[in-house]
Amino acid sequence: MLSRTHLYQEIHQQPDVLTKLLATERDNIQRLADEIRARRITNVFIAARGTSDNAGRYAQYLFGATNQLPVGLATPSLYSIYHRPPKFQDALVIGISQSGKSPDMVSVVATAHQQGAATLAITNFPDSPLGQSADYIIPLHAGQEQSVAATKTYTTQLLALALLSASLARDAGMLGVLENIPAQMKQTLAMSEDIARAAERYRYMRVCVVIGRGFNYATAFETALKIKELTYVLAEPYSSADFLHGPVALVEEAFPALVIAPSGALQNEMRAFIHTLQERGAEVIAISDAAEILQRARIALALPVTLPEWASPLVSIVAGQLFAMHLAQVRDYDVDHPRGLRKVTETR
Amino acid sequence: MLSRTHLYQEIHQQPDVLTKLLATERDNIQRLADEIRARRITNVFIAARGTSDNAGRYAQYLFGATNQLPVGLATPSLYSIYHRPPKFQDALVIGISQSGKSPDMVSVVATAHQQGAATLAITNFPDSPLGQSADYIIPLHAGQEQSVAATKTYTTQLLALALLSASLARDAGMLGVLENIPAQMKQTLAMSEDIARAAERYRYMRVCVVIGRGFNYATAFETALKIKELTYVLAEPYSSADFLHGPVALVEEAFPALVIAPSGALQNEMRAFIHTLQERGAEVIAISDAAEILQRARIALALPVTLPEWASPLVSIVAGQLFAMHLAQVRDYDVDHPRGLRKVTETR
Repeated sequence: MLSRTHLYQEIHQQPDVLTKLLATERDNIQRLADEIRARRITNVFIAARGTSDNAGRYAQYLFGATNQLPVGLATPSLYSIYHRPPKFQDALVIGISQSGKSPDMVSVVATAHQQGAATLAITNFPDSPLGQSADYIIPLHAGQEQSVAATKTYTTQLLALALLSASLARDAGMLGVLENIPAQMKQTLAMSEDIARAAERYRYMRVCVVIGRGFNYATAFETALKIKELTYVLAEPYSSADFLHGPVALVEEAFPALVIAPSGALQNEMRAFIHTLQERGAEVIAISDAAEILQRARIALALPVTLPEWASPLVSIVAGQLFAMHLAQVRDYDVDHPRGLRKVTETR
Repeated sequence: MLSRTHLYQEIHQQPDVLTKLLATERDNIQRLADEIRARRITNVFIAARGTSDNAGRYAQYLFGATNQLPVGLATPSLYSIYHRPPKFQDALVIGISQSGKSPDMVSVVATAHQQGAATLAITNFPDSPLGQSADYIIPLHAGQEQSVAATKTYTTQLLALALLSASLARDAGMLGVLENIPAQMKQTLAMSEDIARAAERYRYMRVCVVIGRGFNYATAFETALKIKELTYVLAEPYSSADFLHGPVALVEEAFPALVIAPSGALQNEMRAFIHTLQERGAEVIAISDAAEILQRARIALALPVTLPEWASPLVSIVAGQLFAMHLAQVRDYDVDHPRGLRKVTETR
């Protein structure tokens, strides 16, 4: 029974673990943000893989828009394989990892620390090698994650990053929005039944693309990863702009495109993009709170809450998680034990 | 007839256009490298899309390893859609675009220029909006590219970036390696017949993954993009390390994985990775010059030349281009006019 699986339970624990993170870490994050500000960083690099890397993609947009900091994703093999590490100057280097164990991630953060850069670990295990190699730690307090597919550690990572961004900017308005996220996430979980019904239609889907842009670029990547891990459908994520630079050639009659487009500055862009897809015969599944997006989709998955666009990835991913879980269920896969995956992956 | 197509001709023009770029721009690039050095940049951000973005991925590794510069990929929507641009400090901001026309790329470089950052345009059209918005220009001299799928503009972009990296480092050894690339590329083009024969086997392939890591992470992305554009197969690129963090669940009996693994520091890693794939029943197609990699593959595409690993992406992509072209031919597609694509894509 689906509701007894770890995956189902961990998806539904998210409002509570986010509440716990807010209660436990808000002051700590403000303190470390003040210390980081004092170091006058001018750029940020993030080392992460898999789900945590997708949290890093969110930070690229959030720190860029809120803190005017350019954020790059690090190239771990330069540290762990080639031993030709770039030199971080005036940078904040953030390692994000549920387990804190993957040697390539530790290698980036430890090298940055030796170079004198400011380093931060965001992890569920503060005592892990990653936690021990960084100046600052934000523990996720997500509790043990037993499902192989990460869900509650992803949303706690997003919240930790958003709290850091808001604290660096000393933006009380942002902090207020974040305080409300657990309640809005609870409302979003009510989509589960509708999504379960919609998923039936995709019993025999072989491939799909998942499209998001800007703040929800991360949501597209993370939704695609959940679909791959749980349903073995080759789901490739794209920004709508990158997709038009070549891959749009893939689209033929009935080609499925899951478009994540909450309301906000990108709305016009995404409406036009859906039109382009439909002219080529694509089947558009939309996750949005905006009526004009939902009306255009073949299958509309309506988000029940409207947030400022920068905060929307915290709830839009819940719809993506539910879609991947129900699609796996429709296909009779074991959602807690995807084939050939273990919880902790250590790469060099 | 395939040899009369623009795509075929442009792939085969590559040794000549690279020779021309070396002859025409080597001194100019040394001059602008000296000016950029004097500006004491500490990090690099690159704005690009599609094929040009893959050239940017190469620069992440090359500038990191050679020049100790952390390189990030920019987030254009923060400039063009959200109007909340990050502030570049002590950065070199590089816009890479064949046409130099896409408004989102121009927006990043123009903003960086206004902020006082060092800016460089790498483009086939120096008079384009992108060329006009930057402090420095490297013209590609690739001649008109008539095929929609970019080939010679990609390899000239790689060479321009490699010349810049070597010139910033004043590394005569690297420059010597680059002088030899056109001759080695000519040898690599002789793979065409073998690749044409191998491609028959994939007439009915629906999906595949393309794997590369480190310097050839870019080659995996660019090969996957050519396959998507020319053959409409959903080919998803991955680093071998990222692939193990979740997507490996996709692999079932006969799942095709194209592994790009020239000899070098990653060789042991890639050998072990191929073993992991094969334990799960994958069909491995390898592009490599290393016997121990080729022996392990179901289908071996042997690179006829061995280069230092940092320079190998300049020739390994030729094998990828040939594979995508011949697979399109095997499937009776028009290689010069992929469905629904135009040469210049302008995104906001």
